[in-house]
Amino acid sequence: MQLLKERILSDGRVLPGEILKIDGFLNHRVDMELMHAMAGEFAELFDISGITAVLTVEASGIALAAICASEWKVPLLFAKKAKSDNIEGGLYKSDIFSYTYKKNVTLLMSMQWLSSNDKVLIIDDFLANGEALRGLVDIVNQAGAELIGIGIAVEKGFQPGGKAMREAGLNLKSLAIIEKLDESGIEFRE
Amino acid sequence: MQLLKERILSDGRVLPGEILKIDGFLNHRVDMELMHAMAGEFAELFDISGITAVLTVEASGIALAAICASEWKVPLLFAKKAKSDNIEGGLYKSDIFSYTYKKNVTLLMSMQWLSSNDKVLIIDDFLANGEALRGLVDIVNQAGAELIGIGIAVEKGFQPGGKAMREAGLNLKSLAIIEKLDESGIEFRE
Repeated sequence: MQLLKERILSDGRVLPGEILKIDGFLNHRVDMELMHAMAGEFAELFDISGITAVLTVEASGIALAAICASEWKVPLLFAKKAKSDNIEGGLYKSDIFSYTYKKNVTLLMSMQWLSSNDKVLIIDDFLANGEALRGLVDIVNQAGAELIGIGIAVEKGFQPGGKAMREAGLNLKSLAIIEKLDESGIEFRE
Repeated sequence: MQLLKERILSDGRVLPGEILKIDGFLNHRVDMELMHAMAGEFAELFDISGITAVLTVEASGIALAAICASEWKVPLLFAKKAKSDNIEGGLYKSDIFSYTYKKNVTLLMSMQWLSSNDKVLIIDDFLANGEALRGLVDIVNQAGAELIGIGIAVEKGFQPGGKAMREAGLNLKSLAIIEKLDESGIEFRE
């Protein structure tokens, strides 16, 4: 998606350790117009005609996923990261490793809100190691729901998450895939 | 807000310990149409004409705040809960106690995205003890930004957060204030 790539080049900053800071428009300060443009792009990339929900995980993917759900007139579901005492009983659970927080985290989704009657599109802002997405896919499978696809804003193509998911046959589409990231600049995959 | 109160009565469940479960439409599975209706209500309650951003805190307030920001055509800012290694340097910080997670949490906001030039409206899904809001207000004050008001979807009026904020002179408006919550039912403040 050209608009997103241009925004990454104009506003993104590369930090040591192959960290890409795009928190000025994606995941700390969020440009809502860009979120709508991305939702439009996902609607062309996926068959959203029959979906019953957009699924994401707290926290930073929620803004983008909310705009997608709003435009497509379906509910937004977001998995929670344990442990909150405000969820009880009847839960799908999936254990992941959070590279952001450097610890194991359990993703939770109430069984009440996801079942084999659902057709979901997963939306998230960022894909690197893919642990959060692996957990979401696991939850969709536990529910027996149909996974239409996975739509990502920005993928770090040099980290293993995206490759593993495509090899597993998942319908993953990222609006910008970063091939290389260092002090000399940012290169996208064609 | 009548629509919200009716939804709380029809879909909410009361759990022991004065816990109100409304995760079927507000903060786990999110009804986007209701979010738009609430954004419309906030737009009547506050003077949003000059705001530069909607401010919230991760995670469950983001969906509502994103819809507000989208409708009002301003960016969404969400404070993060430490510690993420993807934020560095130049931060406003505010320490709060999280009743959900039963531990101290530090709210973080990059100085880059909030300054004395900003006029913000804080939006959140829930107000009980008000710790998260206290942290957000603290961050707005640290930035020297102007706080137009605080818009809340559901307030537990029998817990101290709302009272303390109103006594401090903050322009707080909640779309539904719950006065009493037990096995016999849910009572709203008029």
